[in-house]
Formats: sequence, C-alpha cells, structure tokens
Amino acid sequence: MTSPASSSVLRVALLGGGTVGAAVARHLLQHADRYAASLGRRPELTGVAVRDTTRVRDGIPAQLLTTDATALAEDPGTEVVVEVMGGIEPAGSLVEAALRRGAQVVTANKQLVARRGEELHALAREHGGGLHYEAAVMAAVPVLSVVRDSLAGDEVTAIRGIVNGSTNYVLDLVAREGVPFAEAVRQAGELGYLEADPTEDLEGLDAAAKVAILARMAWGVALPLDEVATTGISGLTDADFAAAAGRGEVLKLVADARRDPQGGVRARVAPTALPASDALAQARGGTNVVEIEAVLAGAVRLSGAGAGGDQTASAVLGDLVRAAGATRVG
Amino acid sequence: MTSPASSSVLRVALLGGGTVGAAVARHLLQHADRYAASLGRRPELTGVAVRDTTRVRDGIPAQLLTTDATALAEDPGTEVVVEVMGGIEPAGSLVEAALRRGAQVVTANKQLVARRGEELHALAREHGGGLHYEAAVMAAVPVLSVVRDSLAGDEVTAIRGIVNGSTNYVLDLVAREGVPFAEAVRQAGELGYLEADPTEDLEGLDAAAKVAILARMAWGVALPLDEVATTGISGLTDADFAAAAGRGEVLKLVADARRDPQGGVRARVAPTALPASDALAQARGGTNVVEIEAVLAGAVRLSGAGAGGDQTASAVLGDLVRAAGATRVG
Repeated sequence: MTSPASSSVLRVALLGGGTVGAAVARHLLQHADRYAASLGRRPELTGVAVRDTTRVRDGIPAQLLTTDATALAEDPGTEVVVEVMGGIEPAGSLVEAALRRGAQVVTANKQLVARRGEELHALAREHGGGLHYEAAVMAAVPVLSVVRDSLAGDEVTAIRGIVNGSTNYVLDLVAREGVPFAEAVRQAGELGYLEADPTEDLEGLDAAAKVAILARMAWGVALPLDEVATTGISGLTDADFAAAAGRGEVLKLVADARRDPQGGVRARVAPTALPASDALAQARGGTNVVEIEAVLAGAVRLSGAGAGGDQTASAVLGDLVRAAGATRVG
Repeated sequence: MTSPASSSVLRVALLGGGTVGAAVARHLLQHADRYAASLGRRPELTGVAVRDTTRVRDGIPAQLLTTDATALAEDPGTEVVVEVMGGIEPAGSLVEAALRRGAQVVTANKQLVARRGEELHALAREHGGGLHYEAAVMAAVPVLSVVRDSLAGDEVTAIRGIVNGSTNYVLDLVAREGVPFAEAVRQAGELGYLEADPTEDLEGLDAAAKVAILARMAWGVALPLDEVATTGISGLTDADFAAAAGRGEVLKLVADARRDPQGGVRARVAPTALPASDALAQARGGTNVVEIEAVLAGAVRLSGAGAGGDQTASAVLGDLVRAAGATRVG
C-alpha cells in the first residue's frame, strides 16, 4: 500500500474537526517527534475533513482543512483514517470506504460501531485492515482493551457500569444536592452536559450502544440494539429519589451485560437503586465507572471521565499507536 | 524454533507449582479447547517444575511434575516459559536461559523484574523473544498494559496507588475498626495476609518494587530500587492514626512515581495521610487502587484484588495469550 519513499512516514487522515478532532490534530502536530520515536515513523496529517473550512480551529493549520472527506478516506497512500465526525452517515460510508482499501480505521463513533460493528469488522478482516474504537466507550478509560486483551486468558462473566456521564451528573445532583429532578435536567443542559437533543442520553440509548459494544468485546456476540432492554431516566420522579434515599440507596443509570446459564448474553440499561456501598453508587458528577467480573480475576473496576474532547482524543491516539503497529510498510 | 509437526500446538512450561502455578495449570488443562480456539493452537503443558514432586497438587497431573526446572526452561521446543516460583534465584537464571534461546517468558516475579528488568528486556530483544509481567503488579488489575498500551498516545505524568494489599488490610483494620496497630499486624499475619517474614510488606519493599516497574512502563526509565525513597508502615504508632483521624484523614501506604520538571522521574513509598474523599483513601481491606494521571486523559483509576492465586493466574494467562501471539511458528 505504501511506496518505499514514504515508509518513514505514517499518513493519517482526520475526518471531523470538532472538539475531539482538534485535540487529536493539535497533539499529533505538537508532539510529532515523540510519536515518530515511539512509532518508528513520523505521523503526517494528510488533511482534516470539516463541513466549514472558513471556521478557525484551534491548533489545526487552515491549509489542512477540506470539505472532501471522501478523498481523504479513499486516498490509497493514507494508512490510518481517524473518524471523529460522529453520526451514522456519512461517517459509515467513509469508514467503509477506508476499510475496503485495507486501511486501519480508528473511530470514536459508538452508534456506528454498535449498529454496524459486525459488518465493519468483517470488512477489516476481508481486506487486511483494522478497526479500533476504544474511544467509543468511556473515552480514555480503556475498558475495551481490558476486556479483550488483559482478560483474554480469563472468562468474563458480567460487566456493569455507569457509562453515561450526562445522566450521572443529573442523578448525582438530585441525590447529593437535593435539587428537584426537572431542575437538575435543566441545569445539566445549561452546563453543556446534555446535547441540544438530550434524548440519546436521557432515554438510555447512548448507554445501550456502549453496553452492546462491551458485550461484543467480552463474548464475541453481535447484540442488536433492540435486544438491549433499555429504560432511561426520563420517567423518574422526585418520589423515586426520596424512596431510594429513605432506604439508604442511590439511583443510578446502570448498564449491565452478563452471560446467562444457556450461553447467551443478556444486556440491559435501567435506573437502578444501589446500596450506598456499591462501587457504582459512588460515581460523582460526570464520572464513569465500570466493574468487570471474571472467573479468576474477580471484580476489576475502572473509572475516570467518560467523555470530553481531550479524554476522547487520548483514546483515539492510543488506538492510532496500535493501528500504526498493525500497518505493514513496503 | 518449532517443527512443522508441532505448529498446531503451543508448548508451555510452568516453573513453579504453588498457588499461582496450580491455578494456571488447572485453567490451561480444563479449558484447553477454549484456548485452542482463541490462540489458534492448542496449549500443551510440557511440565511443571516444583521442589517436591511427591506433594499432591490440586489440578496438576502427577506425571507433569518434575524437579528439573532447567530442562523445562532450556527445552528448545517450548515456546512459552511461565515463571511463577518467585525469588531472585534460581528464577533469574531460568528466565535468562529461556530468553537466551528466544522464548517468550511470562513471569509474576516483581522482585526479579524490578532488579533485573533492563537486562532481561535487553536479552529478549537480542534473541527475538519476549518478556511479559502484568501479573507482577496488582495481579489481575491490568495497570501495566493500561500505562504502556492504552495511554501510548497520551503522556503519563504521575502514577500513585495502593499497591500492597497486606499493609492496606492492616491500615484499614486500624482506621475503620479501631483495632490497635500491633494487634492489627498480628491479625493480618494470622489470616495469611502477611508472609512468614513480613518485612517485604511492612517495610514497603514490595510496593517499591512495583512502583519501579510502573515507572519503567510509563517513562522507559530504569529506576534502581535504592532510588525509590521507601518508608514502610512498621514505624507507625496508634498516636499517628488518632492524629490522622482527628483531621478527618486516613493513613495509607502510598506508592507514587512522577515526572519531575527536569525530565527525571521521582518515586517514593511512604505512609501518607489522605483526605477521606481521595480515591486511594477508600481502598478497603486487601484492595489495590491505582490512579494514573495523563495530560489528555486526566485521572484514570483501576482497582481490584491486587493479590491471590486465581487473580495472579488471570494476569499470567492474559500474558500467555499475548505471548502466544508473539511466537512465530514454522
């Protein structure tokens, strides 16, 4: 795929120049020497695909901006394509085009991976490329590689966690500050914790996509989103919070996937009253926590900020290093 | 190294048949089909080196037991050598012998890796083998691979944690149950939390070895153990605990490594009074917790049981899968 002349360079295309994309570009450009040392090749940004090339983006040189995402994704000289635009389309077609030519693809797009992961993995295998998406679940908290690699010699039996920071911010505000539920949702929106359309967070769809991805990593099963029993937090009332508090419990939006005795996998997302001593009950504000149960390891817990531009960029850049290792030069 | 006839088999030698070794052997033998499916080759245990072959070991067939560890380590047909005997010698010579013939070595031996890691890594590089030791730090809590792989695109700035479960058990008993310190040490010994010679735990030497290994993973520096400023818990008095409690703080044995502004690395182990809200202050009983700080990711925390036969075996088996991927067949 790569000509001998370019073998000391790793060509990277960036699809999306929002908060995550800008952080990735900035870090790659500022620390090119360090990446060159660790990758053995100097990363070279071929371009950053955006909708509006006239907008100034902190840390991205204007001459790298382009609206032609397809050209970036299809360029045969580009070994790694990083997709951080979000949404199902055009992201899906672009990722597919890159995989069809055998590229390594790094994406932070949880809805795309949850909906089309099987098919995209198959394309990667068929064409000798790779698909990496640690950033799609819990940002820089590396739950996917822990489940897939670190516990590869063990048997994961269950995964449960708080994987949506926006709803946890709301629930924590109600539980700890006594803010009425509707008011907490309003405040979370004002502070930018919720999207303009908060349905994906509040109805548990974001968490459902993440738990489906986790189930694939842990057990290799394709779990369609409509098989994740999903209840969001929008139906909660102040009486529910008062009742939980009265029992010494804390309401959390828990995502849960586990093997059933028949060898299948059950997954659900639902508001759940937890004893205050539960590791998940202690998640504050926008923090994410996940607890992985394995036969030998017992419970392994990971936590950290599960969202944010820099945090997501950290995971994307980690996958970029992994993807670089998987590219074959010459 | 491997003859074509054996290419569908992965030959594994086990040095040590104690709690960890027995758990590794049992799991490998019981789940050979599953490992064969995930590795693409069926693991075959070539032997288990022990001091006393007459002792019955749960899950290890008697005919696999041998006292000739050298023969197992040096057998040119064995791709992976797992060292779980502990101690500096003869473990060090056996690991060295295996590395000199290009084998993949998996070890749980923190003192060996902390003292001779540089040299053993160099041997692995020189002879085309590999050295894996996730199990040496925090057992199944995969802190080494998170620092090395997941955060490979980020910059780790500091690591601090509770990495010795025995001393944390003692400190937690004093802080939460009000047990006098000397009595808590005695109880921990009776319950098997402390070794017959508890010096390594109580004087912080176990934690110092772990923090030196973490520093190598994070920053690639060789940190001799005598450069880790190490204070154990044996000098603490009940008055120290009372004073900390009076300030709303909790005494913990904290291992800490961080980059200094001059580009060096400082590491220390010391009893430290932490505010009760600190993630490390909340570690109960034998739990280990580590908090990794990185420029983009912010704080990522991992926790779980940091010791135990099964837990250590989980990490050894994870490294075994990784090592199998690194062996070249044919």
